[in-house]
Amino acid sequence: MENLLTRIINENKKYTNLGNVADYIPELKKANKEDLGVYIYTTDNEEYFAGDYNKKFSIQSISKIVTLMLALIENGEEYVFEKVGVEPTADSFNSIVSLETKNFHKPLNPMINSGAIAVISMISENKDEEPIDRILKFIRKITDNQDININEKIYLSEKETGHRNRALSYFMKSTNILEKNVEEVLDTYFKACSIEVTCKDIAKIASVLANGGILPWSKEKIIPRKVTRIIKTIMVTCGMYDASGEFAVSVGVPSKSGVGGGILSSVPSRMGIGVYGPALDSKGNSIGGIKVLEELSERLDLSIF
Amino acid sequence: MENLLTRIINENKKYTNLGNVADYIPELKKANKEDLGVYIYTTDNEEYFAGDYNKKFSIQSISKIVTLMLALIENGEEYVFEKVGVEPTADSFNSIVSLETKNFHKPLNPMINSGAIAVISMISENKDEEPIDRILKFIRKITDNQDININEKIYLSEKETGHRNRALSYFMKSTNILEKNVEEVLDTYFKACSIEVTCKDIAKIASVLANGGILPWSKEKIIPRKVTRIIKTIMVTCGMYDASGEFAVSVGVPSKSGVGGGILSSVPSRMGIGVYGPALDSKGNSIGGIKVLEELSERLDLSIF
Amino acid sequence: MENLLTRIINENKKYTNLGNVADYIPELKKANKEDLGVYIYTTDNEEYFAGDYNKKFSIQSISKIVTLMLALIENGEEYVFEKVGVEPTADSFNSIVSLETKNFHKPLNPMINSGAIAVISMISENKDEEPIDRILKFIRKITDNQDININEKIYLSEKETGHRNRALSYFMKSTNILEKNVEEVLDTYFKACSIEVTCKDIAKIASVLANGGILPWSKEKIIPRKVTRIIKTIMVTCGMYDASGEFAVSVGVPSKSGVGGGILSSVPSRMGIGVYGPALDSKGNSIGGIKVLEELSERLDLSIF
Amino acid sequence: MENLLTRIINENKKYTNLGNVADYIPELKKANKEDLGVYIYTTDNEEYFAGDYNKKFSIQSISKIVTLMLALIENGEEYVFEKVGVEPTADSFNSIVSLETKNFHKPLNPMINSGAIAVISMISENKDEEPIDRILKFIRKITDNQDININEKIYLSEKETGHRNRALSYFMKSTNILEKNVEEVLDTYFKACSIEVTCKDIAKIASVLANGGILPWSKEKIIPRKVTRIIKTIMVTCGMYDASGEFAVSVGVPSKSGVGGGILSSVPSRMGIGVYGPALDSKGNSIGGIKVLEELSERLDLSIF
Repeated sequence: MENLLTRIINENKKYTNLGNVADYIPELKKANKEDLGVYIYTTDNEEYFAGDYNKKFSIQSISKIVTLMLALIENGEEYVFEKVGVEPTADSFNSIVSLETKNFHKPLNPMINSGAIAVISMISENKDEEPIDRILKFIRKITDNQDININEKIYLSEKETGHRNRALSYFMKSTNILEKNVEEVLDTYFKACSIEVTCKDIAKIASVLANGGILPWSKEKIIPRKVTRIIKTIMVTCGMYDASGEFAVSVGVPSKSGVGGGILSSVPSRMGIGVYGPALDSKGNSIGGIKVLEELSERLDLSIF
Repeated sequence: MENLLTRIINENKKYTNLGNVADYIPELKKANKEDLGVYIYTTDNEEYFAGDYNKKFSIQSISKIVTLMLALIENGEEYVFEKVGVEPTADSFNSIVSLETKNFHKPLNPMINSGAIAVISMISENKDEEPIDRILKFIRKITDNQDININEKIYLSEKETGHRNRALSYFMKSTNILEKNVEEVLDTYFKACSIEVTCKDIAKIASVLANGGILPWSKEKIIPRKVTRIIKTIMVTCGMYDASGEFAVSVGVPSKSGVGGGILSSVPSRMGIGVYGPALDSKGNSIGGIKVLEELSERLDLSIF
Repeated sequence: MENLLTRIINENKKYTNLGNVADYIPELKKANKEDLGVYIYTTDNEEYFAGDYNKKFSIQSISKIVTLMLALIENGEEYVFEKVGVEPTADSFNSIVSLETKNFHKPLNPMINSGAIAVISMISENKDEEPIDRILKFIRKITDNQDININEKIYLSEKETGHRNRALSYFMKSTNILEKNVEEVLDTYFKACSIEVTCKDIAKIASVLANGGILPWSKEKIIPRKVTRIIKTIMVTCGMYDASGEFAVSVGVPSKSGVGGGILSSVPSRMGIGVYGPALDSKGNSIGGIKVLEELSERLDLSIF
Repeated sequence: MENLLTRIINENKKYTNLGNVADYIPELKKANKEDLGVYIYTTDNEEYFAGDYNKKFSIQSISKIVTLMLALIENGEEYVFEKVGVEPTADSFNSIVSLETKNFHKPLNPMINSGAIAVISMISENKDEEPIDRILKFIRKITDNQDININEKIYLSEKETGHRNRALSYFMKSTNILEKNVEEVLDTYFKACSIEVTCKDIAKIASVLANGGILPWSKEKIIPRKVTRIIKTIMVTCGMYDASGEFAVSVGVPSKSGVGGGILSSVPSRMGIGVYGPALDSKGNSIGGIKVLEELSERLDLSIF
């Protein structure tokens, strides 16, 4: 297996030259464009890896599934989907058009920025814990990694430049989708996007989803089965930005990408996969990462279809 | 099993009153709003059914997956997706907006009308066979039913009132997506939508998809496995109009609906399901049919996620 | 005055090189890109001209104000604006988006293609006269030129390639804005666009508008004053495609352009101006023609503002 | 003349019942729905008035022409229209769609909120004067009324609820249309909208525009003629929200309305008119005010067309 992974990494490394690292904030530009790594964590607790699997990167949009899980666990399906839809869209992740023109101003789904911001506003707080503390606690649990933390530089950079997200948020404030203070919600959002992970971390999150919400390493039930099914469904229909449909055809595995270069893929009942490659294609997905997943899917017959 | 089906049909019949039969053409208005039937055809050639499973209805949009299969078999994946995308959209099935504003004028996917019309224009003809003849031959093969035919009244009615489809088609003609004569392509399209089927017919089509392209009853390989995977994927992301995302969450089975009241659902490796209930919800999906599938999915654990 | 015109033509001829002749039909491509001419016809029957003022060109979108006048005379303001709005739009003249999304499917105004097609469908016919015969009779009257006719080659070319207009028309057919047979209405539309005129002809039409509907040369009252006011108003807000706002600021004279290279400008109470220059800017307006009008407006203080 | 005005006010008062006072902030809801007043200030310094002409109301969107004048005087036409277009739009005044999809993210014109906010950001400041001070100084000058000031309650209410404007502004911040601090720019904008005026005040502003930028009462030249022409042009094409086209047809006088109930109308060379009636139609224009202007335009032959 590791031979296979190593070969796949080596053979697909060349594609990283066809992409570009995210450049909207300076910190992301520092990534090494040629990095490419993969980590597999099976529901039987087997682990396989190759390439730059231990590089740290910011989780970015992959956080959207983490915060959605937490919001669903805390509030239930009905509450969450009262404010955010589950329909895929051909618009880009930061588009504001559909907030004005469609779905009665509800964000179309929780994988576009507006939807994720609305979702994050539902995560509760109490006097000892800010929402971001709850998110960190949760992600440390589902990765079995207590060292996970926020990359402060990336967070500050996101916060400083996140005007499009402010536009989305104030729009939702004006239509009562967002009820809390905008800057506070965004602060949590920017922090959640800046969480630093490795391929292993996201592979383990994916393995929990693959395992129906039970931590494979401790057999502890953490997430209701229904929630893991919702998450995997939304990953298929909306997880790869506006290339989700194409990815579903070519790979067929519930996945979520982030502009930090990560892709989290969950093969139901079998395994979680974490891929990292910061060179992105025009849609914002890891260009090498998609190649790796295409080949893995074919070799290991991973497609759910 | 048949007890289960009978119970499910009976218990969900009440929902048919919350919907309305399609009324854009007089023929569809004649349907009996309270009809509700289901047919299961397993990949092991077992058959179960209940309710109004033997009523005939027009296939309507379910034809979109039949013609897509045929176009893919004839032309290959690359040729077809050169002209039509595979991205889901939150726009309604007959929307023309995205043809002007998105995806370089390519229809976003083959399940919206514009995409299906573009796909149907790719089905070849020869001096003995019109495209519709090839479509009929193909559907008779994958249903094992030589009696399948066009409902002439519905066809004429579609043709007479199909001005929105003409608008979509002439738009595509103006952008060179459509190369053939518009009225000829539309004639095939209207005929394909007017094909009359029963729950059994569409259950059998679904069973072929579930069985990776091999006819369960004869073991004959009819459709490349890759094509069946593409079809199932597109059914998940785009098969239930702009309620596809919600349906994927609640049912989780690759499905395609039509305004004639049918829903075709394909459970990979296991079975094909055909449901019929002409009372539609606001999105154009069979309102009772969806309820039946939700319950079946839960009872039989059908979700692919 | 003629010295002024000659100088203005000569000085602005250089701008024709920055534009391009319309190329969507072969006939229009044959125009001489460097042509530039102007004709002024005052309400006192004085005439001034310079440059290529006697070249023939197809009237194209300038016909939209001729057919709107006729439709208003025949049907009255209320009837016409029941089906077509009078609001300017930032969308381009052949955009279909707003037909689906705005104004309850009514074309936003009569100067975009959809609106003009809807207007032309209101022109009546009787057993001796087709709508195009009425249009020709009317334009011959308001130009005092019995020789005006259709350029057959341009008409056939328009008809052959006019698929976008077919898309617009069938869309309107589907929403009942258009009630007549689409191809018949379009046939009239394509013929009306293919009427051949000179600068003098359109200057005379403009002089009638400037003169409140009275033919300056015969004092005959042809058009109700209210209709001329409506036409001039719509010319200001919508007459120069999606550059109408900019043109109103820089020139300030009610005008209508066509992709044949003509611009008709009506200075209330004072004069009609016809300009011809087939090199177009990116919006579809005569690039040299606009320069000529800017200078004329400044020199003769023509702005109505 | 005053008899005429009194009669027009009395006869049109009934229409105020068909409209509603603005209700998005509590302060505006306090307006007396039946109020209707008019003030005429001619370029010869004659004054005529009737009805509730001396009621105070917040200037709201009428401020958009005041701040545009100031920005044009300070920065010149070229600078201002580098960032904001002059094309009318059929979208509503607070729409965000076109910021994403049209005109390279430039606001389409200075009469919609986004455009007005961009314009207000261009008004300079120095150590003694905030932008709002310059605006107040300017409006006091062109109204000859030193008592003009901000209604503090309305300002605070606007500021508290102005989330849609925040969305527009942060969008423009993200596309670099807006360079200054968003909340500071909005603070000026909310204050400018909250300036309290009477019919007389806005009639006098209109008379300055009518008079080519020369204060009729002192003959002092305050605004370049070119600027007054630009303002009047934009008022015709964009001044009455997305009913500008219809108003241009029915009234034909450059005008700007505000949701406070005011309409400022400038009849070139002749007079300024201020109308007040807080009952609004569905587009946000004073319903009685439009009726008054329609009748005045007809009686006094005010249309510029």
